[in-house]
Amino acid sequence: MIQFYYNLSPNPMKVALFLEEAELPYEAVPVDTRRGEQFDPAFTAVNPNAKVPAIVDGSTTVFDSNAILLHLAEATGRFLPAPGDAARGEMLSWLMFVATGLSPFSGQCVHFRHFAPKGQDYALERYVFEARRHWRIVNDRLAERPFMLGEAYTLVDMAVWGWARMVPFVLGEAAFAELAHVKRLLDAINARPAAQRAEALKSRHAFKAEMDDEARRFMFRAVGTGGA
Amino acid sequence: MIQFYYNLSPNPMKVALFLEEAELPYEAVPVDTRRGEQFDPAFTAVNPNAKVPAIVDGSTTVFDSNAILLHLAEATGRFLPAPGDAARGEMLSWLMFVATGLSPFSGQCVHFRHFAPKGQDYALERYVFEARRHWRIVNDRLAERPFMLGEAYTLVDMAVWGWARMVPFVLGEAAFAELAHVKRLLDAINARPAAQRAEALKSRHAFKAEMDDEARRFMFRAVGTGGA
Repeated sequence: MIQFYYNLSPNPMKVALFLEEAELPYEAVPVDTRRGEQFDPAFTAVNPNAKVPAIVDGSTTVFDSNAILLHLAEATGRFLPAPGDAARGEMLSWLMFVATGLSPFSGQCVHFRHFAPKGQDYALERYVFEARRHWRIVNDRLAERPFMLGEAYTLVDMAVWGWARMVPFVLGEAAFAELAHVKRLLDAINARPAAQRAEALKSRHAFKAEMDDEARRFMFRAVGTGGA
Repeated sequence: MIQFYYNLSPNPMKVALFLEEAELPYEAVPVDTRRGEQFDPAFTAVNPNAKVPAIVDGSTTVFDSNAILLHLAEATGRFLPAPGDAARGEMLSWLMFVATGLSPFSGQCVHFRHFAPKGQDYALERYVFEARRHWRIVNDRLAERPFMLGEAYTLVDMAVWGWARMVPFVLGEAAFAELAHVKRLLDAINARPAAQRAEALKSRHAFKAEMDDEARRFMFRAVGTGGA
């Protein structure tokens, strides 16, 4: 039984989708980051980076959503090109495009759009530009093929889905108007029973909803610490 | 013969180190990003994200430094745990820690420390905090083992090395005082002939050195565009 440490943010949800798609048995262990549970020593022993998602799969511990997707896909042999397939390089490239570009820039954009103090115009402009640029590259790619790697639904689509659900929160309510192919992929995955089971995690645990001072202290710890 | 598209920034240098360690024959193709060469259609056909590094390895194209490290390690069977080894999950976790955390936060820290307009105190503080937090996690890990995954030098150490070279530029000249184990790994890798051959790429091509208006326009395109 896989232990799946999660909250409802985009990166854990990618992993929830894979677990549901592959019908892997798992125990969902909530980590309420707005209450600081990610800093519990029992959790940092699993992930020294104090972030969800992380999994314990038998004797193997894996953290970072993209590492977990790759681990699970390799362990099951599902949702990725076959071993030795020339498309593996393409898979790694696009998975990393999501992991190192699309996700972090979307995350920084959310921070400056919704959570940072007002007046950070330069930073907001920077991250809106970069997040939008990345989403347009995904959109252009999906204009020419049904899924990120072609005809087959893979872990890369699951990685994109995690953040595609949040595009209006990242880029504003009108963003899908210029990202029609991203929206089409999002709708196609949302219609899958596995995605609905993943989304149903929302009703399994009462995570703290308020972004109050306690939550800000746990989530944006640089604030007021002098950057130390 | 591998075509290696590069400049002298940390991410391409990780790949140069691997190519030299594995003694793979390659042609180094400079992409001068301060002159905008990353936007040449011939290059965006290789990497639609318009970034270095990228490689063309026979019929396989791979972009993103971490994807390339994994591709090359798997292709050669070198500098990573053997197939089926339980340490693969650990390898993926730490490679992704570098790829999705250490590298992007170090990069954002460099931007706000050196290139953004003055007065972005909140953003600078945020990224100094996050970059420093990530480097301390690496340092703590290296306090207990010679290399990131234990006794063996692997692709994860090469990924760390790319940015470890830049720690004073990221966090300030005094930063190694509290990152002694990172410095020890950096020195150990720098002493390797492969690292010296990788660094020798600096004398192979005259990249534009000035960060003038043209360079800023190509590298920080959000500025003055209204975020579009």
